[in-house]
Amino acid sequence: MDDNYSQWYNNLVVKAGLAENSAVRGCMVIKPYGYAIWEKMQAALDKMFKETGHENAYFPLFIPKSFFSKEAHHVEGFAKECAVVTHYRLKNDPDGKGVIVDPDARLEEELIVRPTSETIIWNTYKNWIHSYRDLPILCNQWANVVRWEMRTRLFLRTAEFLWQEGHTAHATREEALAEAEKMIGVYEKFATEWMALPVVVGHKSENERFAGAEDTLTIEALMQDGKALQSGTSHFLAQNFAKAFDVTFTNKEGKQEYVWATSWGVSTRLMGALIMAHSDNNGLVLPPKLAPIQVVLIPIYKGEEELKAITERLDDIAASLRAAGLSVKIDDRDNVRSGFKFAEYELKGVPVRLAMGPRDMQNGTIELVRRDTLEKEFVPQEGLTERVVSLMDDIQQNIYKKALDFRNSMITKVDTYDEFKKALEEKGGFISAHWDGTVETEERIKEETKATIRCIPIDAEPEEGKCILTGKPSHRRVLFAIAY
Amino acid sequence: MDDNYSQWYNNLVVKAGLAENSAVRGCMVIKPYGYAIWEKMQAALDKMFKETGHENAYFPLFIPKSFFSKEAHHVEGFAKECAVVTHYRLKNDPDGKGVIVDPDARLEEELIVRPTSETIIWNTYKNWIHSYRDLPILCNQWANVVRWEMRTRLFLRTAEFLWQEGHTAHATREEALAEAEKMIGVYEKFATEWMALPVVVGHKSENERFAGAEDTLTIEALMQDGKALQSGTSHFLAQNFAKAFDVTFTNKEGKQEYVWATSWGVSTRLMGALIMAHSDNNGLVLPPKLAPIQVVLIPIYKGEEELKAITERLDDIAASLRAAGLSVKIDDRDNVRSGFKFAEYELKGVPVRLAMGPRDMQNGTIELVRRDTLEKEFVPQEGLTERVVSLMDDIQQNIYKKALDFRNSMITKVDTYDEFKKALEEKGGFISAHWDGTVETEERIKEETKATIRCIPIDAEPEEGKCILTGKPSHRRVLFAIAY
Repeated sequence: MDDNYSQWYNNLVVKAGLAENSAVRGCMVIKPYGYAIWEKMQAALDKMFKETGHENAYFPLFIPKSFFSKEAHHVEGFAKECAVVTHYRLKNDPDGKGVIVDPDARLEEELIVRPTSETIIWNTYKNWIHSYRDLPILCNQWANVVRWEMRTRLFLRTAEFLWQEGHTAHATREEALAEAEKMIGVYEKFATEWMALPVVVGHKSENERFAGAEDTLTIEALMQDGKALQSGTSHFLAQNFAKAFDVTFTNKEGKQEYVWATSWGVSTRLMGALIMAHSDNNGLVLPPKLAPIQVVLIPIYKGEEELKAITERLDDIAASLRAAGLSVKIDDRDNVRSGFKFAEYELKGVPVRLAMGPRDMQNGTIELVRRDTLEKEFVPQEGLTERVVSLMDDIQQNIYKKALDFRNSMITKVDTYDEFKKALEEKGGFISAHWDGTVETEERIKEETKATIRCIPIDAEPEEGKCILTGKPSHRRVLFAIAY
Repeated sequence: MDDNYSQWYNNLVVKAGLAENSAVRGCMVIKPYGYAIWEKMQAALDKMFKETGHENAYFPLFIPKSFFSKEAHHVEGFAKECAVVTHYRLKNDPDGKGVIVDPDARLEEELIVRPTSETIIWNTYKNWIHSYRDLPILCNQWANVVRWEMRTRLFLRTAEFLWQEGHTAHATREEALAEAEKMIGVYEKFATEWMALPVVVGHKSENERFAGAEDTLTIEALMQDGKALQSGTSHFLAQNFAKAFDVTFTNKEGKQEYVWATSWGVSTRLMGALIMAHSDNNGLVLPPKLAPIQVVLIPIYKGEEELKAITERLDDIAASLRAAGLSVKIDDRDNVRSGFKFAEYELKGVPVRLAMGPRDMQNGTIELVRRDTLEKEFVPQEGLTERVVSLMDDIQQNIYKKALDFRNSMITKVDTYDEFKKALEEKGGFISAHWDGTVETEERIKEETKATIRCIPIDAEPEEGKCILTGKPSHRRVLFAIAY
């Protein structure tokens, strides 16, 4: 992990059975254990979306090429690196070598595999919205999207990825702004409470804004190597897409107005954040709320008879744990040693491991190891379920606290460009600095140091200062970092 | 419905807010109300899959073209009508007219948008399977797929559709056969218990078999217009894909063997089955188990004061119904009449409608209308929750019974080709007849009558007879129908 963070990450993703590269360049296979974590994320987020009044829907995978040209910024940001469908049929190769694209089956207009769905959705909303009574529309979709990335990394940057994208339509600017803020709040809450991941909420600079947005809110997390990871965004799109797709409504006064919009999304990238924020050299460290297996039970035995007696007792314990709402696995495989099993569940980040041998049977005890600290203790079997249930909370809190302490220790205030470069090089993490607010300055800093403005924190205190690069006046600090 | 079933179906799908055609030919938008039904289907199926030991995973959207050539039957069945990605970049049109495909960004090998995932999955399984200890693999994925259909109909046949596809790998032929049977059983149970849809379970004839399968099991349902709808299939793939992708394992005796496979799937086509099996001229009739709104409450009032009093009472009733696990909506909109609301919830198929006016307030009664029979009665408010809960079961059963009675009345036994054609023309439905077992006969019958063999029912009694077309000997009856 310390030697080669990038290699460590990739090995961990593969060895823990989360995902792997596929035969298709840039596309990953999400393996059952990884997908089980993603499903838990989806379930928690979906519930939060519904509790805030949103409904799910589904829009087409393909977008006509011409749709991208309708919003000028959007086409620059998205239409370039994308998968283009040009034909709709294959035929047998006349040379007998498999199949070839049938040149007679060329599409009149090429279709783009959606990199994001604003265009096709606003083209649809045009038919749904006529009066203020049709507003707001609060839709979300769970979908796959494709962006043709040249350098891909499992979960963090893949050509195809899974995500949700919310697309809402409102009668007023204020309502749309409030929606964009509400949803970044939902993401913050999810990151904090479920992923045990502390995040900074802030506005993106113009440079880093979503293509087509008037404002982009972001949650930024810090990985253990000191790099930042943008983990979710919520965009105030103003009337840009309504104008591009001519979506108007009759307001209460009977006048025609363009509709106001937001969009917001998180993706399987969150898996990368989860892995990089908490794991160690032994493997994954999963917060109990997202762990597919929360408790694993392992019998330590010699011979059939011991195994039978211990397994019976473990079955009872498992039943009690399950009745308390925990997800439990008993691993009684006889072809691998218990040491191998211990290592495997450490690798997989199972929050609590319980092991029972013949002496425990006699003593009424059980060996308990928590994954976050790797502390081992022998505890009484009596009251075990209550102990484990309460330990789940402890572990969830402890993982969060550890990540929060680390993150807080990695925010460095600097006042000069030299300090800035030194901090970036020697320590990494977030650098809190003054900036003159211009795109040019941000770009020059990026060129010279690779650091970008991760966000202008929403709780940034007003503070007069001078831009670290240009010395021009600045009214608050912003957070820089080198980012994934 | 009687005049033009096809038009009635399409209008119903659109008017009830389930789905609509999109700007992309053949691709639909699934609207929130339709998607909410699909989500309930997904949740029920997903639970059944997990209870039978399956895990979810996710495989790439794209499949390299060459993969399709590896299984001879599969390429004939699937690789022809499909969306082909040939380029990965757009660029600004030098003439300033939007964007064009960048000719420099041509893929070395074209990618096919998956029409089904056997090929990419078996290419992946090759790396997962080495020993008998790695088997079975029991994976499912929820995904979108694309088949370039020329004539599309909402839910029934669309270029892009949503589905689940299970792909399992086994050490023995017997185990794979048992899996294929188990999963068609899961589909039968789901159709029966959740969709209130009676289905015939059977084997497909060779002609109608999945491209690459050695046996295809199907559930066949009957729509109200007398046409059959294939609603789910489960395939025994033998070692065909293992051979095509060279997937072998070391068995317990230390010998290398090819792996045995199944695949099975249901899709958003089930939405079409649900709609066409139960709906009437007033709109949808949803089985309570799949209804997004199970009970709607409507106040009948004049003036603010009455509205307030009635709504307060309805709030209490709604709370009690929700506490009993029902999904409830109160519609107190003041800009539409209650008659309009009644029609709207009939259109949307809400199983139970409760309406309360001032007289009901005085009498302690409420108006209850069940959607399946449209029977109206005034019932006491006391004990209402218990009554509605038990009514949900009644409605679920009644919808099933109605569909079952209809289906049973639409199975006609014939012994001659003349009877066959007469029954098909005058009555439709399933025709139970003897067939000589050859592809040629089935094809000639299809050409002459449009009827195909829907299935050879698994519970078909042995019965000696003569093929209706050729007079050759036959040992059991099969079911023919004109199908969607």
